[in-house]
Amino acid sequence: MNRYQRYAGELAALIARGELAPGTRLPSVREASRQRRVSPSTVFEAYYLLQARGLVESRPRSGFYVRADAGIPAPPPPSAPAPRSRAVAVSDLVFEVLEATRRPGLVPLGSAFPGAELFPLQQLARALSTSMRRLEPARIVEDLPPGHEPLRHQIALRYGLSGTRVTAGEIVITNGALEALTLSLQAVTQPGDAVAVEAPAFYAALQALERLRLRAVEIPCDPQRGLDLAALADALQRRDVKACWFMPTFHNPTGSTLDAPGRRELMRLLEQHEVPLIEDDVYAELYHGTPPPPPVKALDARGLVMHCGSFSKCLAPGYRVGWVAAGRFAEAVMRAKTMTTLSTAVPSQHALATYLAGGGYERHLRKLRRTLARQYELAARLAARCFPAGTRLGTPAGGYFLWVQFPQGVDTLAMQREALERGINLAPGQIFSTTRRFANCLRLNFGHPRDPRFEPALREIGTMAAGMLRDQRS
Amino acid sequence: MNRYQRYAGELAALIARGELAPGTRLPSVREASRQRRVSPSTVFEAYYLLQARGLVESRPRSGFYVRADAGIPAPPPPSAPAPRSRAVAVSDLVFEVLEATRRPGLVPLGSAFPGAELFPLQQLARALSTSMRRLEPARIVEDLPPGHEPLRHQIALRYGLSGTRVTAGEIVITNGALEALTLSLQAVTQPGDAVAVEAPAFYAALQALERLRLRAVEIPCDPQRGLDLAALADALQRRDVKACWFMPTFHNPTGSTLDAPGRRELMRLLEQHEVPLIEDDVYAELYHGTPPPPPVKALDARGLVMHCGSFSKCLAPGYRVGWVAAGRFAEAVMRAKTMTTLSTAVPSQHALATYLAGGGYERHLRKLRRTLARQYELAARLAARCFPAGTRLGTPAGGYFLWVQFPQGVDTLAMQREALERGINLAPGQIFSTTRRFANCLRLNFGHPRDPRFEPALREIGTMAAGMLRDQRS
Repeated sequence: MNRYQRYAGELAALIARGELAPGTRLPSVREASRQRRVSPSTVFEAYYLLQARGLVESRPRSGFYVRADAGIPAPPPPSAPAPRSRAVAVSDLVFEVLEATRRPGLVPLGSAFPGAELFPLQQLARALSTSMRRLEPARIVEDLPPGHEPLRHQIALRYGLSGTRVTAGEIVITNGALEALTLSLQAVTQPGDAVAVEAPAFYAALQALERLRLRAVEIPCDPQRGLDLAALADALQRRDVKACWFMPTFHNPTGSTLDAPGRRELMRLLEQHEVPLIEDDVYAELYHGTPPPPPVKALDARGLVMHCGSFSKCLAPGYRVGWVAAGRFAEAVMRAKTMTTLSTAVPSQHALATYLAGGGYERHLRKLRRTLARQYELAARLAARCFPAGTRLGTPAGGYFLWVQFPQGVDTLAMQREALERGINLAPGQIFSTTRRFANCLRLNFGHPRDPRFEPALREIGTMAAGMLRDQRS
Repeated sequence: MNRYQRYAGELAALIARGELAPGTRLPSVREASRQRRVSPSTVFEAYYLLQARGLVESRPRSGFYVRADAGIPAPPPPSAPAPRSRAVAVSDLVFEVLEATRRPGLVPLGSAFPGAELFPLQQLARALSTSMRRLEPARIVEDLPPGHEPLRHQIALRYGLSGTRVTAGEIVITNGALEALTLSLQAVTQPGDAVAVEAPAFYAALQALERLRLRAVEIPCDPQRGLDLAALADALQRRDVKACWFMPTFHNPTGSTLDAPGRRELMRLLEQHEVPLIEDDVYAELYHGTPPPPPVKALDARGLVMHCGSFSKCLAPGYRVGWVAAGRFAEAVMRAKTMTTLSTAVPSQHALATYLAGGGYERHLRKLRRTLARQYELAARLAARCFPAGTRLGTPAGGYFLWVQFPQGVDTLAMQREALERGINLAPGQIFSTTRRFANCLRLNFGHPRDPRFEPALREIGTMAAGMLRDQRS
């Protein structure tokens, strides 16, 4: 977490506890800078962030004041499902929602992808041309699982540089992260087994459980702190959980991140119960300020963690190149891959290996991170301004999803249908649950910086939500 | 079937029945040409084919004679497993064999792929460059299942031109045929269900059954005539078969093709029992002479057939683009695809659409077919010359596999291990069976025309086989 984020967090806590009451003027930037021994820009950024979250407002030529409205957006409270295992039947709803939102030309607030213009597609196309011109014909049939050797080395190198010990030998290249995740799940489960997932959870995880006839044990995931480790400990104690599928970093949909002590405790629980973890880490590169804590995989001395990554969200959407560093399960995953899709497209693998070897990735990532950070500020500010009082917002430190919890009475599934008619697609909360919870929540994609329809669309959502609340009262 | 193939078939039947006895001189090319009202070159090609199959020999300045040796290679007899369903446990053996054969530099007689130099890889690379340069960024995330629209139209068009009615709407683009096949299988089965497969069967089909916990009902497949329809009728009557997975055209491993009346009967049986067919048709384009009969899909009025194709064997290995025309199951397959690997690599899809639209595919195919036809003749001739008396050979009319059945006493699994030490990889018969049958058989890949080691390798195999037979007698 950045210095300014930490400072903003402290102030937010004071506001939440009422110690900074509505209407109170915050110290001037110069005062605060002196008191806290931080630069004026740090203070300014903290204030700006608080404003973005709707906690304070700036009054021209006067300064920043704690907002007076009762309905200050606060972080959504942790969810609390019973940690029982249950059969999953969510796919039809998910498909119904996703298929409706695939109409071209919609404002992509429900999309799973950031804007395609954020990626170096021309550089990738050049890497593709170069590598395919150079290709020895025999290679075209030799890059079978575990995958293209130079690419696996590039990936292992990136792990190494960030302090996580992973060998190229345990890396299996897959068709995007989704294949990495589902093959990993298959490698350690049998139909009927119980698998722990977050609540809310990425809908594709729930669909994978349903398809493989696994049972879900839903562990509450706090939009601020991430996974509820006490609930997990309890579930591991009481249920025969065969695997966990979690996103400790920039969780989809809440945006939460489990802190470093939490990760150590998670690893301890996994080891204690000998339960493998499928660590979905596809947003790790997309931090807005400082990097997130190292992945749980970095703490894994016994090969229990299958760490799944991808280039689809940070570099090369559509190339369909992901991977899993599968620890002790690498052989099983590789075999499962050989039996289902054989190999990953050779042109895509070679293009990425060539691009990564050529440099430029870090520069691209820095730019992408800055863009997403700016977009988050914009999204939070607009949400604070346009959404009804009582709406709570997640506070993602990375990625491009904002979790929005409207007051009870807003039905986001109904809103999604209405929004479609207005040309806006949405991801309603119910698709992130086995039990149709989160009916008043939305996952809002803010990763399309060039789309001028973003602000008006947020206004429309605010209007729809307010209308639902009015209807409820009348 | 070509005229010369038909003529050769008639002569082969006369030889088999002893009506053309060993040592008999065949009519001269000129005589036969007059008698049969065919061109001299047709006669010559027929004689040449018989020589390739080891049935006749040419004596310099004298003509063609029926060979004297008792051990004339004859087609292997049909296999005859009991049509009971059984759990499948073949994967470990398959992996053991396949992984051993992946060492680079081996003579690729056991390979599943033809030589990479047979494909227009440079033209494809150009199509790839062109299409990725032209790509609108938004397309990179929009080619989700069912897949790239122009490619689906190109595929539908090819069906249409060959007389099979398929709409683009029922085509789902997949990561090669293997994904098409396994998703199709998943779309129509539940764990524990019985699925009819050929015996011998493509090992990946057996692995898919094992992975999905399905039971196999093995239907004998005659190396000449293909699927035993009487056995299938019996199995469909007596067992609750939920799906069939067959390769009616250039079957892997036997090379057999079911004739047109057989296809009609197969379709009738499927309709009568309401059983879906997964039609694995990846070699259809690789006919040596005349095209094979239209696929079973062409007879399918009710959407029961899921016809799986691929560009991996005929145009673009490594690009990993296959498809299924899934009839009434298209929606289910598309959903399964969305849940497992999301989309197929966009660069590969666009490259193929661009290549196909640009023309040149037919020319490439004509050349490839001629090359494989020549290679088959060479392989059959060498096999007839180098393999022990009593060896029987399949007679593929397409593809690049020759099914070899050695006399009892030859153990091809032991031979495979010995061959590996001599730098040759082999596909022993046992990997094509759930019950380790076909222990004296080999699937021989003849699709590497530029490999000078082919002839010496076949000699070595012959020597090993002869050695095993000698050891057995002593």
